[in-house]
Amino acid sequence: AAQGARKMEDYGRFLALLASTLLVGFVSVILSLVWVFHYREGLSWDGSAGEFNWHPVLIITGFVFIQGIAIIVYRLPWTWKCSKLLMKFIHAGLNTIAMILAIVSMVAVFDFHNAKNIPNMYSLHSWIGLIAVIFYSLQLLLGFAVFLLPFAPAHLRVVLMPIHVYSGLTIFATVIATALMGITEKLIFALKNPAYSASPPEATLVNCLGLLLVIFGSLILWMASRPHWKRPPVENAKILSPIAATPEGTEVESTMTNSSNADKSDLRISTEAARKQNIKFDEAGQRSTM
Amino acid sequence: AAQGARKMEDYGRFLALLASTLLVGFVSVILSLVWVFHYREGLSWDGSAGEFNWHPVLIITGFVFIQGIAIIVYRLPWTWKCSKLLMKFIHAGLNTIAMILAIVSMVAVFDFHNAKNIPNMYSLHSWIGLIAVIFYSLQLLLGFAVFLLPFAPAHLRVVLMPIHVYSGLTIFATVIATALMGITEKLIFALKNPAYSASPPEATLVNCLGLLLVIFGSLILWMASRPHWKRPPVENAKILSPIAATPEGTEVESTMTNSSNADKSDLRISTEAARKQNIKFDEAGQRSTM
Repeated sequence: AAQGARKMEDYGRFLALLASTLLVGFVSVILSLVWVFHYREGLSWDGSAGEFNWHPVLIITGFVFIQGIAIIVYRLPWTWKCSKLLMKFIHAGLNTIAMILAIVSMVAVFDFHNAKNIPNMYSLHSWIGLIAVIFYSLQLLLGFAVFLLPFAPAHLRVVLMPIHVYSGLTIFATVIATALMGITEKLIFALKNPAYSASPPEATLVNCLGLLLVIFGSLILWMASRPHWKRPPVENAKILSPIAATPEGTEVESTMTNSSNADKSDLRISTEAARKQNIKFDEAGQRSTM
Repeated sequence: AAQGARKMEDYGRFLALLASTLLVGFVSVILSLVWVFHYREGLSWDGSAGEFNWHPVLIITGFVFIQGIAIIVYRLPWTWKCSKLLMKFIHAGLNTIAMILAIVSMVAVFDFHNAKNIPNMYSLHSWIGLIAVIFYSLQLLLGFAVFLLPFAPAHLRVVLMPIHVYSGLTIFATVIATALMGITEKLIFALKNPAYSASPPEATLVNCLGLLLVIFGSLILWMASRPHWKRPPVENAKILSPIAATPEGTEVESTMTNSSNADKSDLRISTEAARKQNIKFDEAGQRSTM
């Protein structure tokens, strides 16, 4: 009973953190719209500054907010009864949307630069941003090929999963760093009379937006790296998804439990046992997690 | 024997990665000096641009390079026979040096700004940079009080260790993001005729420096978050350090092994067993690590 109470408390803590994260992400998107509509030229697609303005809005909406949600989608406890395959589709789908929005937002900048005869790709922001989009696309492609398509052998998934997780979180952090550089550039270029250094209201608003992006990123990284908030490893996926139904278990997680050769009538019990064992392992692994 | 060969291979991989990381960090420091001496006004402490130039040099040397080394110092296999207490002193010492250099580098900017009547603390770079220094100092203070001084109870260490690790890595990533913003600001302000957008050699050099900082950060995060590269949990510290010699074991790691009540004649054997067990746990924890 004491353990049950602790679990509920932990569940409450997760929900509070999730709500804060969503709020911070949502306010960031709103602030990007306030910036663009109240202080700048609004949105358009005609080579003017209004076309450039799609860049911050789509990056913050797609490449930061939606990517962040995609990262923690496996952590939502009410999805643990959904099949793993469905969750993989949602994870991949959200990341695909984020990638498309990131690419459209880049096209907006190139279009705007070309219309105004501003050089492309000269800044550190553009270098690291382009590299981030390329790595993000590769990550998506590789993730699709290895973890979603049914062809990769189990041991390959086991080897690649830590790399997938590390790359995902590192790319996400890099995207936020790139957004901060972009904000810095834009405020210096756009604010003349009063300049950025005179701290006009626009500068304060957009600095706060940058700060919120850092907080959003930190919250996502915290939720993603807590071992006890992970989706339990053995679940209905085995029964529901044809991809994961091979005897040796193609799911990465099955390599972490002893239940891969349990017959199906025992599945429910062995799932519970595996979950408990996993929690024990996770506690041991706590120290090994960032 | 096969396992021994795999261990040697893994050891070789760690060394190769460490050498690359040190090289990237070292080249970053060199590039910051080339930037400052070849393209800028060199170093001085007289309110001129030469005083400002201490800022990038000390940040890259101290707050990026030395902090990065401090993060992975427990990962160096040849230190595993040193006492844990000694390693804690080295970890805390390197972080203290990094903090002092970061503070001196901030003083240089404030001094320079005040001498030139440039406002302080208006940019996103300055906001996030100041927050990072404050959090870094708190982290150092809390780390010292909880993990180095012998007063904190074991369960507090267990609770705070994951937070300490998460905060450390998040602050480190934030510091690099702040450095990238600083580079962006400085290149826009300093390069006129030819401007940053004309990609003069200085711009290309410093963009490459920024890129190296991202690579350095990514390598440090990779090494820090691989569970199988961690210092084995039970070691000589128990014998050598008076702080860790209490029967219930004040070391955080002892909570992860079954050897805390092994008597000393068995220590060598139980250490080996614990290390093996730890590797098993670590493999299970692999998925739970970023």
